Amino acid sequence: MRTKPEPQLDRNALAARFAGVRALTEALVAPLSDADSTVQSMDDASPAKWHLAHTTWFLETFILRDFVAGYALHDERFPFLFNSYYEAEGRRHSRARRGMVTRPTLDEVLAYRGHVDAALLAALPALPAAARELVTLGCHHEEQHQELLITDLLHLMAQNPLEPAVWLAERKVPVEMPGPIGWIEGDAEVTEVGFGGDCFSFDCEGPRHATLLSPHAIADRTITNGEWAAFIADGGYAEPRHWLSDGWAWVKAEGIAAPLYWEQQDGAWTRFGLDGRRPIDPAAPVTHVSFYEADAYASWAGVRLPTEAEWEAAAAAHDPLGGNQLDAAGAVEPRPATHGPAFFGDVWEWTGSAFRPYPGFRPIEGAVGEYNGKFMSGQFVLRGGSCATPRGHVRASYRNFFYPHQRWQFTGVRLAKDL
Amino acid sequence: MRTKPEPQLDRNALAARFAGVRALTEALVAPLSDADSTVQSMDDASPAKWHLAHTTWFLETFILRDFVAGYALHDERFPFLFNSYYEAEGRRHSRARRGMVTRPTLDEVLAYRGHVDAALLAALPALPAAARELVTLGCHHEEQHQELLITDLLHLMAQNPLEPAVWLAERKVPVEMPGPIGWIEGDAEVTEVGFGGDCFSFDCEGPRHATLLSPHAIADRTITNGEWAAFIADGGYAEPRHWLSDGWAWVKAEGIAAPLYWEQQDGAWTRFGLDGRRPIDPAAPVTHVSFYEADAYASWAGVRLPTEAEWEAAAAAHDPLGGNQLDAAGAVEPRPATHGPAFFGDVWEWTGSAFRPYPGFRPIEGAVGEYNGKFMSGQFVLRGGSCATPRGHVRASYRNFFYPHQRWQFTGVRLAKDL
Amino acid sequence: MRTKPEPQLDRNALAARFAGVRALTEALVAPLSDADSTVQSMDDASPAKWHLAHTTWFLETFILRDFVAGYALHDERFPFLFNSYYEAEGRRHSRARRGMVTRPTLDEVLAYRGHVDAALLAALPALPAAARELVTLGCHHEEQHQELLITDLLHLMAQNPLEPAVWLAERKVPVEMPGPIGWIEGDAEVTEVGFGGDCFSFDCEGPRHATLLSPHAIADRTITNGEWAAFIADGGYAEPRHWLSDGWAWVKAEGIAAPLYWEQQDGAWTRFGLDGRRPIDPAAPVTHVSFYEADAYASWAGVRLPTEAEWEAAAAAHDPLGGNQLDAAGAVEPRPATHGPAFFGDVWEWTGSAFRPYPGFRPIEGAVGEYNGKFMSGQFVLRGGSCATPRGHVRASYRNFFYPHQRWQFTGVRLAKDL
Amino acid sequence: MRTKPEPQLDRNALAARFAGVRALTEALVAPLSDADSTVQSMDDASPAKWHLAHTTWFLETFILRDFVAGYALHDERFPFLFNSYYEAEGRRHSRARRGMVTRPTLDEVLAYRGHVDAALLAALPALPAAARELVTLGCHHEEQHQELLITDLLHLMAQNPLEPAVWLAERKVPVEMPGPIGWIEGDAEVTEVGFGGDCFSFDCEGPRHATLLSPHAIADRTITNGEWAAFIADGGYAEPRHWLSDGWAWVKAEGIAAPLYWEQQDGAWTRFGLDGRRPIDPAAPVTHVSFYEADAYASWAGVRLPTEAEWEAAAAAHDPLGGNQLDAAGAVEPRPATHGPAFFGDVWEWTGSAFRPYPGFRPIEGAVGEYNGKFMSGQFVLRGGSCATPRGHVRASYRNFFYPHQRWQFTGVRLAKDL
Repeated sequence: MRTKPEPQLDRNALAARFAGVRALTEALVAPLSDADSTVQSMDDASPAKWHLAHTTWFLETFILRDFVAGYALHDERFPFLFNSYYEAEGRRHSRARRGMVTRPTLDEVLAYRGHVDAALLAALPALPAAARELVTLGCHHEEQHQELLITDLLHLMAQNPLEPAVWLAERKVPVEMPGPIGWIEGDAEVTEVGFGGDCFSFDCEGPRHATLLSPHAIADRTITNGEWAAFIADGGYAEPRHWLSDGWAWVKAEGIAAPLYWEQQDGAWTRFGLDGRRPIDPAAPVTHVSFYEADAYASWAGVRLPTEAEWEAAAAAHDPLGGNQLDAAGAVEPRPATHGPAFFGDVWEWTGSAFRPYPGFRPIEGAVGEYNGKFMSGQFVLRGGSCATPRGHVRASYRNFFYPHQRWQFTGVRLAKDL
Repeated sequence: MRTKPEPQLDRNALAARFAGVRALTEALVAPLSDADSTVQSMDDASPAKWHLAHTTWFLETFILRDFVAGYALHDERFPFLFNSYYEAEGRRHSRARRGMVTRPTLDEVLAYRGHVDAALLAALPALPAAARELVTLGCHHEEQHQELLITDLLHLMAQNPLEPAVWLAERKVPVEMPGPIGWIEGDAEVTEVGFGGDCFSFDCEGPRHATLLSPHAIADRTITNGEWAAFIADGGYAEPRHWLSDGWAWVKAEGIAAPLYWEQQDGAWTRFGLDGRRPIDPAAPVTHVSFYEADAYASWAGVRLPTEAEWEAAAAAHDPLGGNQLDAAGAVEPRPATHGPAFFGDVWEWTGSAFRPYPGFRPIEGAVGEYNGKFMSGQFVLRGGSCATPRGHVRASYRNFFYPHQRWQFTGVRLAKDL
Repeated sequence: MRTKPEPQLDRNALAARFAGVRALTEALVAPLSDADSTVQSMDDASPAKWHLAHTTWFLETFILRDFVAGYALHDERFPFLFNSYYEAEGRRHSRARRGMVTRPTLDEVLAYRGHVDAALLAALPALPAAARELVTLGCHHEEQHQELLITDLLHLMAQNPLEPAVWLAERKVPVEMPGPIGWIEGDAEVTEVGFGGDCFSFDCEGPRHATLLSPHAIADRTITNGEWAAFIADGGYAEPRHWLSDGWAWVKAEGIAAPLYWEQQDGAWTRFGLDGRRPIDPAAPVTHVSFYEADAYASWAGVRLPTEAEWEAAAAAHDPLGGNQLDAAGAVEPRPATHGPAFFGDVWEWTGSAFRPYPGFRPIEGAVGEYNGKFMSGQFVLRGGSCATPRGHVRASYRNFFYPHQRWQFTGVRLAKDL
Repeated sequence: MRTKPEPQLDRNALAARFAGVRALTEALVAPLSDADSTVQSMDDASPAKWHLAHTTWFLETFILRDFVAGYALHDERFPFLFNSYYEAEGRRHSRARRGMVTRPTLDEVLAYRGHVDAALLAALPALPAAARELVTLGCHHEEQHQELLITDLLHLMAQNPLEPAVWLAERKVPVEMPGPIGWIEGDAEVTEVGFGGDCFSFDCEGPRHATLLSPHAIADRTITNGEWAAFIADGGYAEPRHWLSDGWAWVKAEGIAAPLYWEQQDGAWTRFGLDGRRPIDPAAPVTHVSFYEADAYASWAGVRLPTEAEWEAAAAAHDPLGGNQLDAAGAVEPRPATHGPAFFGDVWEWTGSAFRPYPGFRPIEGAVGEYNGKFMSGQFVLRGGSCATPRGHVRASYRNFFYPHQRWQFTGVRLAKDL
């Protein structure tokens, strides 16, 4: 999973890190009822209960089962239910049917978590390095599911005509309007991209390799809700000229006319969020737009999306721990604190790069090797993390990926242009 | 809704009847978790929570709102959520999306029931006759939903790979094998069918009218699981000659090869029920077969299904309160007590009659007039009630109806033939 | 196929009848190009070339192959291509793929016809009675395909944005407006329906049997285009109250707002026909309406559709050879000659009766037994023949049947009501 | 459409070139009947008649209409029918309905071609340079449609259970078996790719730009049918490990188990081609495989597909006019003349590169600007041309593109690997 040897966290630090990650997941489901945690709102989304159990299955399977002698599965029937897509791990429940599993209950799944956590923490002092690396992987894996849990939950609540808020939140003070976009220029030059450090990274982030940039400029901030409303008002969703052919077909077939969760009420745009329905904040970054929408916006604006290499080259100078990211359970949303070239947090930024392997990429052997490589067709790379990304999870080299029509993640837009 | 004036139950008796019906519904959901009661397993089925709330909405709307001065809706948002299909009552939540509504919770819906029950019982003494008739209708309406709640719940549990039992039940003693089918002959004669009594009935049961029977015989019992297994073993599902054209297309498209919930394990047939998966009882009536399957079986057997008039003429001499019907919450299933000409209980019996209006039928005015008339295309009539039908609900004139491919109800087969 | 022994046509008369039927089919395709005859416009329709070949395959298979010693198939590959739905005759080409068969060409199919016709006419003098009955059946079978050929062709031309006319036709003189509907009353009485004569009939028309009519009245004419336009103008397609539930779902899903082939141009209704697009004639019978539409119209008018027995009882006194029926190739359309109680021709009239077997009905043995019986679910009976029905084909007992949403045949509406 | 000024062909040479291209298209349809040229076998394919007319519409619209004063459209209704996807040119017939247009006939479409050709050749001497460039574009555009016409025709014939041959062809002498793959190594270096010449090119081929190759090797020949049969025999289509996730879903959903048009007969593989069904030639390049299959093969072989830059760098040294390409109408198929590093002809080679814009790419203004840019999502680049590509049409910089599941073109596989 890693491309370079990783300096091991000492066992105590690893235990603390592990406990912290597991606790945050459980904090996220604290406001949920058994039903909230069970229902699946679409094929792309999973129930919260499934996220809770799947991340636990991952730890139980690849660490406890494989490295702890005498460990007995908590429940022999769970691997079938909670394997996600690891073909090498055998048959599994159909993804689209995850919401049918009302039993085990939320409480039983939390008990499963407790059982596995206790077993893992007990085993940790004696685990070999390979297993400790899998604990680290399990933490990063769980962080990914924390973000999915949040966005899947938001999608579920949006299906409810009552539009319930998951977390109450006070009335927001509008963000100050950012100034016009500033452009960060980049020369034609050979630069290195991809993961090259000695901490954890996912396999698809490497190998680190040289790439050639062409002369370009990249925006110093993302597009705002207010700017997006202007795109709508200018007929952006009604003019095929701005759109990729597949995007235009999607717009017509699905009747797309605004970002997901937007609704016009009394002539003003509102959005649904984890704190219920509220007016959009014109100064906040637009989110829940698809690649097709992002590309159409760029086309309308006469520019383009950045390549992932351009993005990474510009982001390398910025602190991946900065920006608006997930620190605690609550009604997260894109809310930039200040204007300026922040590249991390708030919204995942669509790039114009298809998700394909880097030169020299090879999936690692075994079931965990199915992690990223097999998704390398049809999807586009997103960079930078979002308000729902656990702080510490993302890096300049981090490659997220979704299909061009998907938009239930916190996805947004940064522009670029050729020079 | 009724075709003749009904002798009013006195107010106390009506209150007791009402309370009893409402209590049985709640007993049915007692073993359910919040999630069990929320998930929708297919478009045809509804969540238990929805049944709880919809029956309550029916009472609140057509009685409390319309007849009780000053009554304030328990929650103004509920009519949108819990109207089923009454176009005259305005917009409503999409049927296929009922399972998305995780909130209100089960507890909140039970509170809604409590609120409406209290209001209705308080108002009952002063309700005019028209409203008291609607209370009676509300009871019958709720009984229909009790049966649906049971069959929808069974369907949901069957989607769970763990196949949980809703009610534990001891090991069943096999039923004694019935003898060969006896044939009850019927002459060519003009006879009266349809509801003609002075108790409650649904609009589609009337008007009572003369009809002409042709010479025929009708079986004195339904087909058993053992007989059905013989049909399967004889290649019944593989030979197009037995099947209606639409039925054969359904068999091929859906890969149908046995009744719903049947599964072969170690060479023996099992079925899933509310008490989990168990071997089939060869002597018990086959159930969970579609009209297409029922018709194919009859064709294979060289006979046919009865018409609804033939069935009603034969059933008229039998006690509709007899047979295996629903008396209390539990793992009901077809279990005939004795051999002999019982026409009620165990399984709904497919007839060969399309569900169409009787001569002189007119839907009643207003929203409740949407009750049955608008479903009179594409469906077939079933008669006799099942193990999940609340005792007292069904009559000789009672017309149930489903589409020919549907089989998640407790549906079975009685044969007939021309003489 | 027949319910009573048929007086045999003498061999010369049968040969003349056969030659006449075959010639009319070929006259119908005279204006068609190879491409016109090959394309399939929807799954329900078949290419003209397929109709030409399938009727020929029927004769070749059931007569020449089965009764003429030494007959060699014209082409061994044709049975797979041109069997329609006879399961007993083995595998066959998928119905929805009939339009893919560009070869054999129209000319080759006409040669196939010539070959089979010559062989059959040569064999006719020596054919046994059973085979001669199949020749008669083959003629009636071909007449059914003549009507389908016409309606399938109309549907195909309607898919072409250029809306070509198949036959040129001079400008029509508008029909004189009929007076208000007169009502023919029928008493409650036992009457006989079903085929009971000694000429040819299809299996589903019998056995002739007693049935009981209830007091009713049936309209003396069908609904006109002008009356239908009034239904539209009154919001008939926008008010769910008039519609069966399945019908309303169909209206919404398909965006139905007028009969098939109607289009509003400059505020006036036009229809597409075999002579191209023209204004509707307000006095002519409305056609190309589905059962759902027919039922909704009747509901809007406060009445109902007739049962098939009511229709047959009223039609029995009328001449089935009268009315506007198909005599020669050309741009047929509903054009009533005179006002008055004509029950045959112009449009097939939807009844409120589901297509189900008569008492005592049994499909005949063998492949031809698949003719009608297996279609007895989900369809409604139509009566009376249309402008596209070859004169002589239809009888008072004749039962046509289609699914309630289908409307590419010349289908119309006659009202009835309870007394 | 071009990135650099093109040296104009003199007017005579342009007229000759134009006439030659138009004549080849017509030679391709010479064996077709009216029906063969009209039917559409799937949404991705178009009828031959449509290709004939659409290419003509392109010339009529962008040259005659826009540059020739007083030119009257041959038929005012044709633009609606024969515009393919140019949104700026207004409404157009639905792509999936092209096969419904039986009229105009093939002869009428050929007359349309004659009319436009005559008008264009008459106007050519006086056309301004911009219009002459469009004539050149029209020739290249028509060459693309020649290839599609061939592959669409093959697909149509394959739908016919009779599997007719379009062109008779004598029995083929098997090709000599190639030796093992040789590997052409490429260093890490900055190289230039993209069109940079002064002849014609499509917009997406430029701008020419520097790119950085990483150390790699590319195969000196494509994969053969024999090698593919070994992949099948080794369970290649049954082992999810080799497949991209989307590819595996496609394999399961579509039941894919061999290249398109392959069929096993008596244990040996056959393929359907324009000369009918024949045994595969083990030495010939495999064709009609999708990107998913190509990628799975590479994965099974432990290597990968080349990037488009790697391919272009290797191909630059080879003659784009060489190899097995389309010279005349006939039953073309992949048939390598000799072993060795030929990069052009036989089969389009899937690369691992998503079809995305080059740095600095901008679609040109106006309707013709919709040519390539709007297809830049979801598709993969193919290189090299095929046996159905008109000789002279393809270049080292030429970028063809299809969706990863598509395989009705002559598509094949060349391997590459990291060094």
